[in-house]
Amino acid sequence: MQKFFAQIVLEQKRKKSHLCVGLDPLPGKMPVNTHGQTEEPLLFLKKIVDATHDLACCFKPQFAHFAAQGLETELKTLIQYIKQAYPEIPVILDSKRGDIGSTAKMYALEAFSRYGADAVTVNPYMGGDTIEPFSNYQDKGVFILCRTSNPGAAEFQNLKPSGSQHKLYFHVAMQAMGEWSTYDNIGLVVGATALDELKELRSYFPEAWFLIPGVGAQGGDLAEVLQWGCQSQGSGGGIVNSSRAILYASSGGDYADAAREVALEMQKEMALLFNSY
Amino acid sequence: MQKFFAQIVLEQKRKKSHLCVGLDPLPGKMPVNTHGQTEEPLLFLKKIVDATHDLACCFKPQFAHFAAQGLETELKTLIQYIKQAYPEIPVILDSKRGDIGSTAKMYALEAFSRYGADAVTVNPYMGGDTIEPFSNYQDKGVFILCRTSNPGAAEFQNLKPSGSQHKLYFHVAMQAMGEWSTYDNIGLVVGATALDELKELRSYFPEAWFLIPGVGAQGGDLAEVLQWGCQSQGSGGGIVNSSRAILYASSGGDYADAAREVALEMQKEMALLFNSY
Repeated sequence: MQKFFAQIVLEQKRKKSHLCVGLDPLPGKMPVNTHGQTEEPLLFLKKIVDATHDLACCFKPQFAHFAAQGLETELKTLIQYIKQAYPEIPVILDSKRGDIGSTAKMYALEAFSRYGADAVTVNPYMGGDTIEPFSNYQDKGVFILCRTSNPGAAEFQNLKPSGSQHKLYFHVAMQAMGEWSTYDNIGLVVGATALDELKELRSYFPEAWFLIPGVGAQGGDLAEVLQWGCQSQGSGGGIVNSSRAILYASSGGDYADAAREVALEMQKEMALLFNSY
Repeated sequence: MQKFFAQIVLEQKRKKSHLCVGLDPLPGKMPVNTHGQTEEPLLFLKKIVDATHDLACCFKPQFAHFAAQGLETELKTLIQYIKQAYPEIPVILDSKRGDIGSTAKMYALEAFSRYGADAVTVNPYMGGDTIEPFSNYQDKGVFILCRTSNPGAAEFQNLKPSGSQHKLYFHVAMQAMGEWSTYDNIGLVVGATALDELKELRSYFPEAWFLIPGVGAQGGDLAEVLQWGCQSQGSGGGIVNSSRAILYASSGGDYADAAREVALEMQKEMALLFNSY
C-alpha cells in the first residue's frame, strides 16, 4: 500500500478511529484561557492536538484561516510540533490548490517542502496536468475535490456530460482513480452532505480513499458517513473530518477538555464499526 | 462602471495598453545584478514594476511563487510599494482560491484586507456560494477561471452537459455573467491558447472582461488575442497577462531594461489597436 495511505490505515486501526481533526483558527473565535486572556492561535491549536492525538488518525490544518491572519509561521510551527510530538500522525494541508503545471510545482513545494505536510487537497477544474506536480510526490497523498459539501456544490459538479451515465464529479473520480493514479496516492474529497454521491462512489470505487468533510457544523450524519464512506469491499476507506464542532466546543478555559469530549464521542461511534469486523 | 473595471479602462486608455505584467518570482531564476549578486526577489520585482509601470494597465502577483519560498511579507510589501508609487494601477492577486463559504470569507480577507489587492482569481468548481464571499466586495474585481490556458484544460472544462449546446466553461461564464454578477464586478479567465473558446465567449458576452494568460511562454498569439479578447461591441474588454517573457528577458544586470523592451514591444502592438478606433 502507498506510504501515506498505509500510515492512515495504521493509525485508524491502532486508534479505532476515522477521525481527522481539522485545525481552523477562526479570527474572533479563540477561547479565553484560564488566566482570562484570549488564547494565542498556535498555543490553542497545540493544545487541541495534545487533547485529541490519541483519537485522531490525522490532522488537517485549513490554509485560509492561517493566511487571512498572516499566520504562516504558526502553521509551519504547528506542523513541526505534530511531527515531533506525534510523528506517526499524518498531516493533510487543506489548501485546495489548482493552477497550471509550472505554478502547481510551486504549490507542491509549498505544501510538501516548506510546510512538510504529508498530503494536500487539490482542485481538479484545470485538468490532469495540474494534478501531476502533486501526485509525482510518490510518498505523499493528494486529495482531489470530487463532490464537495457546500450548498452550491451541485451547480457544476452534478452536471451530466452528454452521452455519459455519470455526472461531472464522477468523471473527476474516474480520472483521479484511473489515468491520474500512477502512484496510487490519490484520494477524493466527498462531502458528508452528499450521501447519494458518496454511496455511488463507494460502490464503483471500492479502492478509493475518501476525505469526508461536512459532519457536524455543516449537517452531515456521522453514522451514514461511517457506513458508506468508511467501509469498503476493497482496499479503500474513509477519513472523517470535524473542525468547528471540536475546536470551538467551549469558549472558556476548558476548551481542550471540551474538544476531547466531542472527539471522544465521535471516536466511540467509530470504534463500534471497527469492533464489528 | 464598477470601480475596479473603471480603473482598468482608465489605465488602458491612458497607456494604450492591455498589458498586465505578471509578477512571478521563480526560485533559481533571479537575475544577477550589476554587482554580480543574485537579486533579491522583492528588489527584482520592484525594479520590474518601475521599468514597466507606464506600459501596464495592471500588475498580477502570482501567489504560489511567493508561498513556495515563504515570501508573504515580500508579497505584501510589493503590493504596498505599487500602491504608493503608482496608486492608479490596480493589482490582481492570482491565487485561484476556491472553498466553502465560511472559508472563502477567510480567503477574501487574505486578498483584500491583508494584501490590499484590487482583484483576485477564483476557481468555480465548488459553485456560486463559494464565489459570493469575494464578489460581495463591491469595489473589488473577481476573475473566475473559465477556460484556462494549460494543456489539460479541456479535460473537464470542454465537457458538454447533456441537453446543452454549450460546454462546461460556457456554463461557468453564464453563471458568472448572470446569477453571480450582483455588483458587475466579475470577469473571466480565458487562456490565449484557447482561441475558439475566446471567440465564442466574446460573441456571447460583449460585456465580459477577460483576463487572458498564456501569451508568450505558453504559446498564445498576441494579435489574435487582441482582436478577439480585447475588442468588444459592448462594455467588455481584455487584460493580457505576460509574466515569464517579461520578467526573465535577461538573466543579467540589464534585466529591468530587457523587461521593458519586451513589455514595450507588446504595448506597441496594443497601441495599434487603440489608434484604430
